[in-house]
Amino acid sequence: MAKGAERRTKPLLGAAALCLAGILVAGCAATGPGPEGPDLRGTGDLGLVVERAEGSLVVVDTTSRERLGEIGGLGDLSHASVVYGPEARYAYVFGRDGGLTKVDILRRRVVRRIQQAGNSIGGAISQDGRFVAVSNYEPGGVRIFRAEDLSPVAEIPAAYGPDGNQRSKVVGLVDAPGNRFVFSLYEAGEIWSARVGEDGVSDLRRYPDAGDRPYDGLITPRGRYYLAGLYGEDGVALLDLWHPEQGVREILTGYGRGDKRLPVYKMPHLEGWAQAGDQIFLPAVGRKEVLVVDPADWRQEAAIDVHGQPVFAVARPDGRQVWVNFAFPDNDRIQVIDVASGEIVKTLRPGKGILHMEFTPRGHEVWVSARDSDEVVVYDTTTFEVKARLSAKTPSGIFFTSRAHRIGL
Amino acid sequence: MAKGAERRTKPLLGAAALCLAGILVAGCAATGPGPEGPDLRGTGDLGLVVERAEGSLVVVDTTSRERLGEIGGLGDLSHASVVYGPEARYAYVFGRDGGLTKVDILRRRVVRRIQQAGNSIGGAISQDGRFVAVSNYEPGGVRIFRAEDLSPVAEIPAAYGPDGNQRSKVVGLVDAPGNRFVFSLYEAGEIWSARVGEDGVSDLRRYPDAGDRPYDGLITPRGRYYLAGLYGEDGVALLDLWHPEQGVREILTGYGRGDKRLPVYKMPHLEGWAQAGDQIFLPAVGRKEVLVVDPADWRQEAAIDVHGQPVFAVARPDGRQVWVNFAFPDNDRIQVIDVASGEIVKTLRPGKGILHMEFTPRGHEVWVSARDSDEVVVYDTTTFEVKARLSAKTPSGIFFTSRAHRIGL
Repeated sequence: MAKGAERRTKPLLGAAALCLAGILVAGCAATGPGPEGPDLRGTGDLGLVVERAEGSLVVVDTTSRERLGEIGGLGDLSHASVVYGPEARYAYVFGRDGGLTKVDILRRRVVRRIQQAGNSIGGAISQDGRFVAVSNYEPGGVRIFRAEDLSPVAEIPAAYGPDGNQRSKVVGLVDAPGNRFVFSLYEAGEIWSARVGEDGVSDLRRYPDAGDRPYDGLITPRGRYYLAGLYGEDGVALLDLWHPEQGVREILTGYGRGDKRLPVYKMPHLEGWAQAGDQIFLPAVGRKEVLVVDPADWRQEAAIDVHGQPVFAVARPDGRQVWVNFAFPDNDRIQVIDVASGEIVKTLRPGKGILHMEFTPRGHEVWVSARDSDEVVVYDTTTFEVKARLSAKTPSGIFFTSRAHRIGL
Repeated sequence: MAKGAERRTKPLLGAAALCLAGILVAGCAATGPGPEGPDLRGTGDLGLVVERAEGSLVVVDTTSRERLGEIGGLGDLSHASVVYGPEARYAYVFGRDGGLTKVDILRRRVVRRIQQAGNSIGGAISQDGRFVAVSNYEPGGVRIFRAEDLSPVAEIPAAYGPDGNQRSKVVGLVDAPGNRFVFSLYEAGEIWSARVGEDGVSDLRRYPDAGDRPYDGLITPRGRYYLAGLYGEDGVALLDLWHPEQGVREILTGYGRGDKRLPVYKMPHLEGWAQAGDQIFLPAVGRKEVLVVDPADWRQEAAIDVHGQPVFAVARPDGRQVWVNFAFPDNDRIQVIDVASGEIVKTLRPGKGILHMEFTPRGHEVWVSARDSDEVVVYDTTTFEVKARLSAKTPSGIFFTSRAHRIGL
C-alpha cells in the first residue's frame, strides 16, 4: 500500500515536471491542492472570501470551517462581487476594474479572465445559469457573456437623452425570473429589463422617470419586486415585475439623505436590505436606525435604534434574526435584532473593520469578515459562541456556493 | 465539460494511459465514472429520482438533463423520501420498510445502510447537517443518527397515555431552526419538538391536545410555522415556533374530509402545500379545488376549480406559478395556476401516473415523474416546452441537491 502510494506520488516523470514542461495533462494547474489533485467532494459547503488588498480569493469549507486554499491574480477586488453557476463549482467574479474572472473552486484556479470594460460595478448570472451580465460605468451599459467560456453574447448600451447619444452608468444589475436581467441607469433615471438567450437580448423594456439618479438596486428574495435607491431625491423606485404594465412608482418618500450632502459611496447598499418575517429591514441613511417596512403597503412602520450608522441589515435564513453592521467609527461591532420582538438581543465585537456577513444556508452559523483584523470569524447564531477564526488578508465579501440556487444572488 | 475533458485527456502520452499504467497524475481520478472513478465536478446541479418498483435511485444532471447512472439495493422505496447533507454529495434515503441508507451521488454507491425500524414514514436532517432523524410507526418514536456513519445518537419513544406505556406512530417529522426536530404523534394527538446535539436530545417540548390524529405535517419555507393535518376532525393544527408559549391552535376548521369516509392514504400530503406570493395554496380534501389561504390570519380566501382531486400544489421558486397534479383517474395531467391572477394558465399531459414535480432551484425548469410511462419529463416553466424526456422505471419522488440548503426539505 505504502509502495503503491510511493509509485503514485512519484510517477515516471512527475506530474509537476510534465506540467512545467508544458505538457498539458489533466489537472496540471491543480497541483495546489496536492500531488494527487483536488479531492473528489461535494461543493455544497464551499465558499469564497475576497481578499481585497491582495486581489485574491480564499476557498473555504463551511463544514470544517477551514481555509482550503487560495486563488490569486484577480486584479482589483475592491467592491468585488461573486455569483455561482448552477453546478456550484464555477464562480464569476466582478472586479471594480472591469475584469470578469471565471474561477474553478475545486481546482482552485482561474479558468478564464477578461477585461470586459474599464470600470464596472457588479454583475449577475441568468436564471438558467448560461449567461453572465456585467453592469458598467465606463462605457455605460450592460455586457452579456456565455458562462461557459466568457465569450460575448450581447451588449446593451445604456443610451439616453434627446438624441440617444449619451451613455449612462449602469447600477443595481440583478437577475430575475424568466431569464431576465433588471438594472438601473444612473444619469438617465431609468430602469430597464431584458430577457437573454442564445440569440442575445430580447424583450427590452424601458421604464423612464424612475427617479433622480438611482444609485443601487435589489430584487426581493423570490424575484418579484425590483427596488432602486435614489441619490437625487428622497424615496425608492419600485417596479413590480408581476405587473410591469403599472410602471415604476415611488415608495418610502422619506427614505434618503434629506438635506445632508452625502457622497454616493456613503449611501447604503441596497443589498443590505433584509426580508424577515413579514417585514423588510433596511439601514436608514445617515442615522443610527434600522427602518422596518411592511411590504404589503411599503410604508415604514417602525425604526429601531442601533449602535451606529448601519451598512448592512442581513436576515438569518429563517428570518428570525437580522444582523447589522456599521459604518466607521462603529465598524467594530455587530448588533442582532430579534425579529419577533423588534429588540436588539446581542451586541458582538468580532474585530476591526467589519465589512460583511454571510449565513450558512440553513442559518445555524454566520461568517463575518473583519478586514482590519485580517480575520474571518464564525459564530453560532443560536448561542453567539465563536466557532472558529480563520486568517485572511483584508477580507471583504464572503460568498457561499448556496447562492447558486437563489434568485437575485 | 465533456468536451473539455476530452481535450485534456489527449496529451503527448495520454493521461488515460498514464492512469491505466498506475501512475497517478493530477486529475487521473477525473477521467470518468469507469474504472478510473467518478468525475471531479460540482454537485449543485445533481439530483436523485426514486425508482420505486426497482428499489433504486437514478442520479441525474439538471444542467445536461441526463441520467448519470443508478444506485441500487435500497429496499422498499414506496413513499421513499430523500434529504441531503450540506455538502450536497451525500443523500439520506428513508424507505417505507424502516431502512435508512446513506448514498454517495458522486461515486454512485451506497455508503451505509441500516434497518433502523420495522416500518417508517419519513425523516429529516438537522440544521447543522450532523444528525438524521427518522419517524417510525413500529415501534412508534423517533430515532436519531449521526449523518457521518449512521451510528445511533438518541431515541425518543413516542410514549403517551395515562401510564405513559403506549407508543404512538410518529408522522410529519421536519427539521426546524435551532437544530430542532418537530413531529406529530398520530394516536396521541400531540406535537413534540426537541433539540439535538452531540450529547443527544435536549429541551424536549410536548404540545398535547393538538387535535384528533394528526396524519402529516409541514414546516413553512423559512421554518416558522409547523402545521399538522388532522385525520379525526376537520381543521389543521398550527404551532408558531416563534411563540411556542402560545401552544397549538386550530386553524382552517373547514379543512378535512367532512362526513366522507376517506382512508388516511387518501388525505393530501401536507408537503403538497405551496407558499407563493403572499398566499398559501393547498389541495382540498376530496374536492376538485385548490384552496387559497392568507397566512396573516390563516383564513381561506378563495378556492380555485381544477381538473381533478389535487395531490400536490407546488410553487415555482419565484412564487409566480403553482403546479398541481391529481389523484386517479386524473393523474395524467398537470395544471398551472398563475398566482398573480389566480387563473389556470396551462394544462399539460406529461404522461401516465404523474406523481411528483421538482423545480430547478431558480425555477426555470421543472422535472415531472410519470410513473406509468416510465419517464421523467422536463418542462421550461416560461414557455411550457418539453426540454427533455428521460427514461426511468416507475419514477416517483425527485429530489435535487439544492434541498441541502433549504429549511424543512
